[in-house]
Amino acid sequence: MTRIKFHQSLDELKEKLLVMAGMAEQAIQRAIEAYRVRDASICNLVVRSEPSINRLEREIDQMALDLLAMEQPMAIDLRFILAVIHINADLERVGDQAVNIAVRVREMEAFPSVDLPVDIPRLAELAAAMVRKALQSFIEGDAEMAASVLTMDDQVDKMNEAAFYALSTLIREKPELTPQALNALIVARNLERVGDHATNIAEDVIFWVHGKDVRHHVRSDV
Amino acid sequence: MTRIKFHQSLDELKEKLLVMAGMAEQAIQRAIEAYRVRDASICNLVVRSEPSINRLEREIDQMALDLLAMEQPMAIDLRFILAVIHINADLERVGDQAVNIAVRVREMEAFPSVDLPVDIPRLAELAAAMVRKALQSFIEGDAEMAASVLTMDDQVDKMNEAAFYALSTLIREKPELTPQALNALIVARNLERVGDHATNIAEDVIFWVHGKDVRHHVRSDV
Repeated sequence: MTRIKFHQSLDELKEKLLVMAGMAEQAIQRAIEAYRVRDASICNLVVRSEPSINRLEREIDQMALDLLAMEQPMAIDLRFILAVIHINADLERVGDQAVNIAVRVREMEAFPSVDLPVDIPRLAELAAAMVRKALQSFIEGDAEMAASVLTMDDQVDKMNEAAFYALSTLIREKPELTPQALNALIVARNLERVGDHATNIAEDVIFWVHGKDVRHHVRSDV
Repeated sequence: MTRIKFHQSLDELKEKLLVMAGMAEQAIQRAIEAYRVRDASICNLVVRSEPSINRLEREIDQMALDLLAMEQPMAIDLRFILAVIHINADLERVGDQAVNIAVRVREMEAFPSVDLPVDIPRLAELAAAMVRKALQSFIEGDAEMAASVLTMDDQVDKMNEAAFYALSTLIREKPELTPQALNALIVARNLERVGDHATNIAEDVIFWVHGKDVRHHVRSDV
């Protein structure tokens, strides 16, 4: 394989990873739409999209392996391939979170809709924006943009913590709302995990660009 | 680098990963001991061990990169190195879960100890056993043993689901126990995530041994 062909293959790998990112993001958007309008048919869409995400994850891993096998890549390319391997795994888990949320929404169907002291769509928007921005920083090889994702994560963590205490207070005052409040609490935590995955991706981008490992930026989880 | 030296380096990589596994497992054991005896000083131990786990994760990733850069590994060795990269990331996240549990235990200090309808130490023992078994299957290259971890995960998921409903019922009946019940619910979910990471590791072992991807065994999350 020539050097030029090798770099074409790296580009293909990147393209495939972006498709993967699009699928993961769509799954999250749909899961939250299902939550917002309490629609079980959207939940089914999310659950049914999981096998395709999983299949694509395997394809990308295999492509990465093939590239490692065929060439003796240079350090920067190696770091790129390692970043792809890590990001791929995180995107698949974003898809898992979408499925978890969809399953929660189905459970909620049995209970009347109530007002809760947590803005799940806003939390979801922030988490999805983190994933988008992390991927954008990957496309552009922009470590500074990636670093801004880490700041967004602090915000998601804070919103999630606030939701935890507000819902916990609500449950004590109105125990009859326990099922809905617990469901919202779990969905908020699922979204926080999406934010954690976006953070992982951003850290991988910074590592790839700078060859410097910034993982283990403080991560909290109420 | 000679072939023999390359294989020595692979062994070193494996050794380092086992040290990493030992640290992650110890962190979980300590976090659960802290939960059991409600001891904040053990929580501090867990939180303080995180930087070493993170440092070791970086070292292992770097070693894997160096090995990929120095040799043109054969397919089986490539799959091994890829498995190490994946397992390494999962072990680091097991350590994160231990920290999350330790943080929860500290929060619990403010509330009186009460009996709850969830056997956290048993759930923890099962999750820790999954990690141990997944690593054992890695050491022995035993895909069958790895497959048994997937079965254990179903059990952890079921226990966690039962805990969710039991705690949710308790909260409705005794809203004054909400803080303790929510804390236990979160700890149970943290342990379920440990089980998920063990499952990921087991799947990586099977992939390494068989070159066959069994990831995406059904994973549930209440």
